[in-house]
Amino acid sequence: MTERILLAHGDGGVLSHQLITGVFHKYLGNNQLNQLNDAAIVKSEHGSLAITTDSFVVKPVFFPGGNIGKLAVVGTVNDLAVVGAVPKYLTAGFIIEEGMLISQLEEIVKTMAATAHEAGVQVIAGDTKVVERGSADLVYINTTGIGFVPEGRNLAYSRIEAGNVIIINGSIGDHGLTIMSQRAGLEFITSLKSDCAPLNMQIEVLLQEFGDDIKFMRDPTRGGVATTIKEIATASGYDMLLAEDNLPINEVVAGMADMLGLDPLYLANEGKFLMIANKIAAKKIVEKINKFPGCSKAAIIGDVKTGKGNVFLKTAFGGTKILDLLVGEPLPRIC
Amino acid sequence: MTERILLAHGDGGVLSHQLITGVFHKYLGNNQLNQLNDAAIVKSEHGSLAITTDSFVVKPVFFPGGNIGKLAVVGTVNDLAVVGAVPKYLTAGFIIEEGMLISQLEEIVKTMAATAHEAGVQVIAGDTKVVERGSADLVYINTTGIGFVPEGRNLAYSRIEAGNVIIINGSIGDHGLTIMSQRAGLEFITSLKSDCAPLNMQIEVLLQEFGDDIKFMRDPTRGGVATTIKEIATASGYDMLLAEDNLPINEVVAGMADMLGLDPLYLANEGKFLMIANKIAAKKIVEKINKFPGCSKAAIIGDVKTGKGNVFLKTAFGGTKILDLLVGEPLPRIC
Repeated sequence: MTERILLAHGDGGVLSHQLITGVFHKYLGNNQLNQLNDAAIVKSEHGSLAITTDSFVVKPVFFPGGNIGKLAVVGTVNDLAVVGAVPKYLTAGFIIEEGMLISQLEEIVKTMAATAHEAGVQVIAGDTKVVERGSADLVYINTTGIGFVPEGRNLAYSRIEAGNVIIINGSIGDHGLTIMSQRAGLEFITSLKSDCAPLNMQIEVLLQEFGDDIKFMRDPTRGGVATTIKEIATASGYDMLLAEDNLPINEVVAGMADMLGLDPLYLANEGKFLMIANKIAAKKIVEKINKFPGCSKAAIIGDVKTGKGNVFLKTAFGGTKILDLLVGEPLPRIC
Repeated sequence: MTERILLAHGDGGVLSHQLITGVFHKYLGNNQLNQLNDAAIVKSEHGSLAITTDSFVVKPVFFPGGNIGKLAVVGTVNDLAVVGAVPKYLTAGFIIEEGMLISQLEEIVKTMAATAHEAGVQVIAGDTKVVERGSADLVYINTTGIGFVPEGRNLAYSRIEAGNVIIINGSIGDHGLTIMSQRAGLEFITSLKSDCAPLNMQIEVLLQEFGDDIKFMRDPTRGGVATTIKEIATASGYDMLLAEDNLPINEVVAGMADMLGLDPLYLANEGKFLMIANKIAAKKIVEKINKFPGCSKAAIIGDVKTGKGNVFLKTAFGGTKILDLLVGEPLPRIC
């Protein structure tokens, strides 16, 4: 490990993994924490609780399609939803930089309230800290989410099998590219906007309709689709084969990513889930998703094969590329 | 309200209250959030869950008696304990400044693990973000705590009655003054150290032994004993009468507070609880507390009277002073 923290320790890629296992798991490790799921599930006499936490440091705080407050609700709600939980409660911890306009804070809190309402969750506990000018960047928000997992529901790496397929519920890279474009001063491209949206209502409908045909889900946020699929491959021990031709990418995202030298497969998404499902049900699942309001680009993007936890991309030109965790140029403060 | 966020919006005093009601409750308000308890209690088909969240931005990060990691565990565990819950799970969200020494982070995480072990809680979910140099001050930690409230246990403002007494489990002002002394460059006073410690084991013993004789508890952190008592007085509608002569204050704290112009009644504590209890049981409760290892200064410090939510301090010179929420000079980043 390096001697000091680098920006890349926070980008969800290789160095993040090293930090998590080398420092956090080393001391705090336990069955829950070590599973590296989007949310921990604890079984108690009170039923199965799903619990997840995320701090949001996105820069800029306001961006097309949302703001840090919307992201803070959506990110945590989605982490609960992909483990099969029904999100119920949120906590919100604010670290505010001295000098922030109260009208900006109000705008953010207002958006949080609207998004929480949309997702059907309540913010039941909060905290506010203020730090001196220059000791934060406007505002950071932590949200922790608590949900309940209905009895009999079990989405787990161990349920993944060879022959399953990989589904995504829409286009990739929109959130990450929106943020990077803003930072590159390209905000005049108005058609580009973050996909950030709560997914729990959609996911609940799918789980109720397709039940055990759905094996596992994750939301491809930091590190993007490639990193998330690689994590699933590593944890399950299966190979994953993605077909580049099948990846839904908006035209403006593809063009802009090319211009900025970014690969959409490694760009964060905030309104997307990856689903491993039985092949036999996959077409119906995709059709169902594409009937949800605003959805039309859900697709089967790959296959699960017997293997050693590798991820391969069949490129549009007919070649095959190995995909690994995000490494190299960090994309800091994307969420 | 002011146009911009001031440091005092984070000090737990008057401006903090204005921000909470004027912005957070305005949009996010609900029965739980509006109660302003240390932890929210939600009753579900799964039993009574207590949930609390806190971000820690203490400066300096390392101080005599602890570090930000110890504080992050203790602060959240204690918020659960004072509402009568048995703390069970913690989440931990780190916002780290680029360039932090990994050895420092490791020291902090190690302390968190030891403190969590002492308190009997598990860290089950975590998150790490890294921000650029100058966009944070070394490290900020959010912890959210989840606990279960045993059936039949009910600590509430509504249980407070005239004739009850106010108990504290030890000396006041130690944490706040330790931090302020460090910042004033007075760290050579080696006998001064933070009182930060998990209280849940002590509190559980007391609740089991004294049951309904214990009416209500809070931990007097930001804003200190005076602000917390004022909050209890306001919420319950009773007057609270404190006797200055009975306040346990360590000699070094008294002397140093005087030198720095700080009032120990408004200094943060991180290993103390205030308890409203039946007068008849109070002496036994204090005796019991003083038998806990390291405790010897628990005391009855005041009385609950019929009134209008005011707090009075009977001073050592025989006068009477009204105590209000912390106002004026902010004491930023004390926790």
